[in-house]
Amino acid sequence: MKAFYGDLKLGILGGGQLGRMLIQQAINYNVTVKVLDPDRNAPCKKLCDEFVVGSLSDYETVYNFGKQADLLTIEIEKVNVDALAQLEKEGVLVYPQSRIIRLIQDKGLQKQFFKENDIPTAAFKIISSVEELKEKHFHYPYIQKLRKDGYDGRGVYKVWDESYLENAFTEPSVIEELIDFEKEIAVIVARNALGEVKTFPMVEMEFNPEANLVEFLISPSLLNFEIHERAEHIAIQIAEKLNIVGLLAVEMFLDKHGNILVNELAPRTHNSGHQTIEGNVVSQFEQHLRAIFNQPLGNTACLNNAVMVNILGEEGHEGPAVYQNLEEILKLEGVYVHLYGKALTKPMRKMGHVTAIDADREKAIEKARYVQKTLKVVS
Amino acid sequence: MKAFYGDLKLGILGGGQLGRMLIQQAINYNVTVKVLDPDRNAPCKKLCDEFVVGSLSDYETVYNFGKQADLLTIEIEKVNVDALAQLEKEGVLVYPQSRIIRLIQDKGLQKQFFKENDIPTAAFKIISSVEELKEKHFHYPYIQKLRKDGYDGRGVYKVWDESYLENAFTEPSVIEELIDFEKEIAVIVARNALGEVKTFPMVEMEFNPEANLVEFLISPSLLNFEIHERAEHIAIQIAEKLNIVGLLAVEMFLDKHGNILVNELAPRTHNSGHQTIEGNVVSQFEQHLRAIFNQPLGNTACLNNAVMVNILGEEGHEGPAVYQNLEEILKLEGVYVHLYGKALTKPMRKMGHVTAIDADREKAIEKARYVQKTLKVVS
Repeated sequence: MKAFYGDLKLGILGGGQLGRMLIQQAINYNVTVKVLDPDRNAPCKKLCDEFVVGSLSDYETVYNFGKQADLLTIEIEKVNVDALAQLEKEGVLVYPQSRIIRLIQDKGLQKQFFKENDIPTAAFKIISSVEELKEKHFHYPYIQKLRKDGYDGRGVYKVWDESYLENAFTEPSVIEELIDFEKEIAVIVARNALGEVKTFPMVEMEFNPEANLVEFLISPSLLNFEIHERAEHIAIQIAEKLNIVGLLAVEMFLDKHGNILVNELAPRTHNSGHQTIEGNVVSQFEQHLRAIFNQPLGNTACLNNAVMVNILGEEGHEGPAVYQNLEEILKLEGVYVHLYGKALTKPMRKMGHVTAIDADREKAIEKARYVQKTLKVVS
Repeated sequence: MKAFYGDLKLGILGGGQLGRMLIQQAINYNVTVKVLDPDRNAPCKKLCDEFVVGSLSDYETVYNFGKQADLLTIEIEKVNVDALAQLEKEGVLVYPQSRIIRLIQDKGLQKQFFKENDIPTAAFKIISSVEELKEKHFHYPYIQKLRKDGYDGRGVYKVWDESYLENAFTEPSVIEELIDFEKEIAVIVARNALGEVKTFPMVEMEFNPEANLVEFLISPSLLNFEIHERAEHIAIQIAEKLNIVGLLAVEMFLDKHGNILVNELAPRTHNSGHQTIEGNVVSQFEQHLRAIFNQPLGNTACLNNAVMVNILGEEGHEGPAVYQNLEEILKLEGVYVHLYGKALTKPMRKMGHVTAIDADREKAIEKARYVQKTLKVVS
């Protein structure tokens, strides 16, 4: 492989905020970056050597884009995998590998993979039609998830009792036992082509039951050490079974009985790792670059308590984005603002994130709460 | 002033590594960035919304470039100040202000400013011709510095005795007592338009007497607290006398008698502040943006010991740059590589820098020494 600076052409499928933060880090290594995204105003547009507007799901578009790169990576799973498989055959490095993207694109295959490899996960069944759902008997309540194309809460439906069946998805789906969880936790793991594997310390999500939303991400988690070890072991096990090259985010539930159950995988940088930019020795973006460039992985230790808040478009506002009270946020110490360069806001759109660090965990949480109630994206 | 995100057009005069690292940080604030540089392959080229190739010293070029910005800043002092003064009259914000750039461009005016404001500095005289130098009697040895256009050691000449006069500069210059210094130290100070002022903790340079070169920059300095206080006080005094908006780097000597003498000013981000990216709560780049956007200044405290090494082009190598042993460097923990995206190397050209952090200062220095002897830029 070429030296990973100067001459190496890195292609990124997807030009959103994950690509943007990856480029921000890649600048340190002189990498030549090309980006493909359907949105001509995607967050990466101005920051790369070449920005190509085109569909990520179209075979020809992805193939032609990839053919001009030495190394391809993704910042979104929904890409044309057949084109990536062909590019791999023709000698382009694709990390994560196309077979892993294909597996993870399909929640049915993902669940089967867990089962086959003794990865703990909620009990599930695969359903090919709504008739099958109605014919068979499952314990209520349960969750129905579309096998493909669901994300950020879309493609997920809760079936509380028989009366909910009439609005159930009609497409192929997975139905899953509803877990009454204690905590949502996540571990990001990296693996390079030499087989070196490293996890970031486990993080936990702070849930707001009123808003029914993850409010914050807290790093490192304060759950007991044995849970950390178990969660990190599971993440490593998955990365090694997959032989993935690159980053893998493993989202898990800790149930009320202390069991850890894997919820979902993302074979890329992830929202649950943004706090690593300021909170850890290396960030998830640096680590992903090191992994796909087959370089030594960095030390993932936490430098500080870090609490991350997503900055979402305010309800009732759609149009050109205006950021209110940013000045108030910048008065706080150890608070880092990351805006994603999106011109238009809409309700719940991820417009940026803020990370608060502090040697005192409670103070970091306090700052994050203040950010959350103060910084508003309106139009 | 417009909100400092989204709609604000920031123009940067100079497209080198300082501009590059400033953009890397400005990405977090959605700023629209335009860059002017004479080199069509300048490090900022691919990272800004608009890159203009043109002379920084030409009135028309600077004026036309600046006319399309809301706010102008610099990453190099050698720019056309008359154009900036005119733009200020026409309502463009120029930070640092043109009168400060004019003062600092001229080492004679700079020294007079120190004298008039009781800023401690080496004794000096201003010379308008080589004849004047020969006519007058000064104590040998002394240093002759060109009033204008000297930088990175250029434009500086040591006069050890009379025999050196024949090679002395013939242009207007400053002659200065040669300080037998104990340490070179530096303080970076920021001031915003509201008058808020903050210094970064003082750093010291580790000199290699054999190579006659600054080897490392060490942050924070371990000199005693009283020296820190005095140096920071001097930096604040200068920033306030100048009423500067933006960053000001103050390079000083600590002489053998414990006196602090100001050597030179730079009204911008500076090589002596690169370690703040990983070593301090806010970096010098973030702080400069906050200052020129008139936002609250950030906490400058050190998070860790940080040792910075410049990565210079190897002697005897000129041409397309090749970076040797980067993989060895990435094996170290807490070591951060910043390459500047320069395609061509030449002897002593600044091609990048590496910062090593460690809770143990000696270990940070050890890592930096290893980087210095291991990472080579050849062609």
